[in-house]
Amino acid sequence: MRRKGLASMAVQSVEPSTTCVDLGPAVALSCRECGERFGLGPIFACALCFGPLEVAYELPAGDSEALRKRIEDGPANIWRYAPLLPVPAGVAEKPNLNPGLTKLVRADNLARELGVTGGLYVKDDSGNPTHSFKDRVVAIAVEAARAFGFTTLSCSSTGNLAGAVGAAAARAGFKSCVFIPHDLEAGKVVMAAVYGGDLVGIEGTYDDVNRFCSELIGDPLGEGWGFVNVNLRPYYGEGSKTLAYEICEQLGWRLPDQIVVPIASGSQLTKIDKGLKELVALGLVEDRPYKIFGAQAEGCSPVSRAFKDGHDVVRPVKPDTIAKSLAIGNPADGPYVLDIARRTGGAVEDVTDEQIVDAIRLLARTEGIFAETAGGVTVGVTKKLIEDGVLDPSLTTVVLNTGDGLKTLDAVAAGPTATIRPSLEAFRAAGLAGR
Amino acid sequence: MRRKGLASMAVQSVEPSTTCVDLGPAVALSCRECGERFGLGPIFACALCFGPLEVAYELPAGDSEALRKRIEDGPANIWRYAPLLPVPAGVAEKPNLNPGLTKLVRADNLARELGVTGGLYVKDDSGNPTHSFKDRVVAIAVEAARAFGFTTLSCSSTGNLAGAVGAAAARAGFKSCVFIPHDLEAGKVVMAAVYGGDLVGIEGTYDDVNRFCSELIGDPLGEGWGFVNVNLRPYYGEGSKTLAYEICEQLGWRLPDQIVVPIASGSQLTKIDKGLKELVALGLVEDRPYKIFGAQAEGCSPVSRAFKDGHDVVRPVKPDTIAKSLAIGNPADGPYVLDIARRTGGAVEDVTDEQIVDAIRLLARTEGIFAETAGGVTVGVTKKLIEDGVLDPSLTTVVLNTGDGLKTLDAVAAGPTATIRPSLEAFRAAGLAGR
Repeated sequence: MRRKGLASMAVQSVEPSTTCVDLGPAVALSCRECGERFGLGPIFACALCFGPLEVAYELPAGDSEALRKRIEDGPANIWRYAPLLPVPAGVAEKPNLNPGLTKLVRADNLARELGVTGGLYVKDDSGNPTHSFKDRVVAIAVEAARAFGFTTLSCSSTGNLAGAVGAAAARAGFKSCVFIPHDLEAGKVVMAAVYGGDLVGIEGTYDDVNRFCSELIGDPLGEGWGFVNVNLRPYYGEGSKTLAYEICEQLGWRLPDQIVVPIASGSQLTKIDKGLKELVALGLVEDRPYKIFGAQAEGCSPVSRAFKDGHDVVRPVKPDTIAKSLAIGNPADGPYVLDIARRTGGAVEDVTDEQIVDAIRLLARTEGIFAETAGGVTVGVTKKLIEDGVLDPSLTTVVLNTGDGLKTLDAVAAGPTATIRPSLEAFRAAGLAGR
Repeated sequence: MRRKGLASMAVQSVEPSTTCVDLGPAVALSCRECGERFGLGPIFACALCFGPLEVAYELPAGDSEALRKRIEDGPANIWRYAPLLPVPAGVAEKPNLNPGLTKLVRADNLARELGVTGGLYVKDDSGNPTHSFKDRVVAIAVEAARAFGFTTLSCSSTGNLAGAVGAAAARAGFKSCVFIPHDLEAGKVVMAAVYGGDLVGIEGTYDDVNRFCSELIGDPLGEGWGFVNVNLRPYYGEGSKTLAYEICEQLGWRLPDQIVVPIASGSQLTKIDKGLKELVALGLVEDRPYKIFGAQAEGCSPVSRAFKDGHDVVRPVKPDTIAKSLAIGNPADGPYVLDIARRTGGAVEDVTDEQIVDAIRLLARTEGIFAETAGGVTVGVTKKLIEDGVLDPSLTTVVLNTGDGLKTLDAVAAGPTATIRPSLEAFRAAGLAGR
């Protein structure tokens, strides 16, 4: 009943916005389940079957060389891919945070430790403006919010999104009001609050926050609000495609053989797959097989569980893990993730909190990259999949780090080796020289 | 006497290293005071007058268009400027963190609040791999350390440098042992420790840490150690020139009219001036006047004090400010900073801790950039200099943000606007909707 209510509300609210909306190559929303098409508007569920809506495009046809050159000559951020995104042509000139084109780090030291011989890369999205991949999805949602005339940006968040929305709203000239579980890491709370918008702690889990936001959308209290990951979700999600675009461009316009992606709602993984398929369809990369692997924390592993059990549906869980940015117990795109992992010959795996911390330290020690717990999950899962013979170490492999270790400091209890007086005697006594 | 000891030790240690050292266009070290030249080696003080040594170059002469194109076609990091830096030609292929080419953000919202009409930009170095400008200087020091055969990287640090050295050492295959004051911010301590090197807390101020490191260099305990900001300092310092190069390139190969730079040791400001002058000499930018402004925290403002008092020397102070990354009470390059500020028609100013926090919030609220306290210092000083009629708001102005707010969370006591149960009633009662 609630789903039906949301869907019909969503259909109503599309009407005033479907005319004169310029979102570049985006021409409609289409239902992922039944294929029904709707005009571009702030809607997210199909009015017929309640399936999730996603953006349908008329993508540039024909000359792939010209498109590649256009991209390469574009700005050094996600807007170089504007011809493939639901954004207006002049997007690069509007006030936004210009995320993307983060480093694809060739990780030879880590490869040696893990026994990878086919080339190992870390796509390090901690280089984004608020230091997580969320800047990508929010940047797209901001353009949709402009197009639909919203004045307040909102979201439910496990932390990274809150900071990304707060920052993007500040720069783009929106008000913001974001909702987080009340018990998040200090770094994420301060970062969400510092941009001057409203920040509301919700007494409950992320799933409680999410449910609350869905209610708020149907209520007059939320009128004029663009919830980036609810009523702007179809646009927002498309931002994750840019990870796929960048990885391929940075590999020299080549598909990776294997890619390891963290799973929270599962949206990112599905959009990476969508992005890879688009590049093939556009002739920008050669068509060859690739495998997508999903990574979860054991304390919130409903998709991994379903994958191992051979199920098509995902049974919700109550999260209990240090990887709070992945702590979504009821992942909306779980079934699609299962489908993609199986179709591409990938897998979904999970690691314990202890393995997450070990993996954070491993990545830091080998490559000088300080990852968030979510990065510990992907690196830890990569290690496990290699050890289990599931991931092929002779193939080109890309591991995503979607966030920054500075936001999850408590997870790694790292401190000084020694604390001493400023004297050579004290230093000698500490026994650190010449080791 | 101590200075003499250091200098003669430095001369001794140069000898084995002066042959076969390939540091690109760098041909010698020259004394900033007396001009005496020395071979390239791990030395930092003139054997004749004890003045600081800096790198002397044979820079590419002649065709400035060809050089500009070579830079523009180079990698998207500081190595695009390798022809102007003391690094070997193949530097971009070596394992390092590849910092630089951070965003130059056009800050129109902030400009409106400050009344700047001539174009205001924030050079946002929080986008570097470990989220501070220190990645630039360390990257150069790593190449010098390789050239001189060091196996351990070390430094004295107010925090940002510790993380940058730890990360760079991990990736480049060095051991590391870094020294920090024992009372640093948690974010900086964890970040310095996570890369797996040794981290030593020193019971004292940064100046105590620095003195201790100078002693350690002269002692067998420190043998084989490259202290990036002591015996590798001449090379290290050159990394800051890349800030000047990038700003000009990002402005379309044009000098800014005014630039506001934080002062810790003062090295960064002097090297930015050096970089700007080089671009003029090479014909890469048109020669026109520019003004350099220095920014300090009131609680550690020895250079600002000397500037206002009309002195040429800087009287050391005991720091007491939340801007810990600038808390150097005895800034080595203070006199040179005074000279540059006066020569270019700039100034040196300071702001209180309260003004620093206000400025952090101002920058976050207007541009979505969460700066470290050092960024609060530069933005706060910019505001003050405009209000005082010292900085001309009709001119193109660049303000440096050299670090990341996530590392100085305690400085901004930002938190949720409200914490509520997940219900519409509770949200209505909080009074946040429709504001």
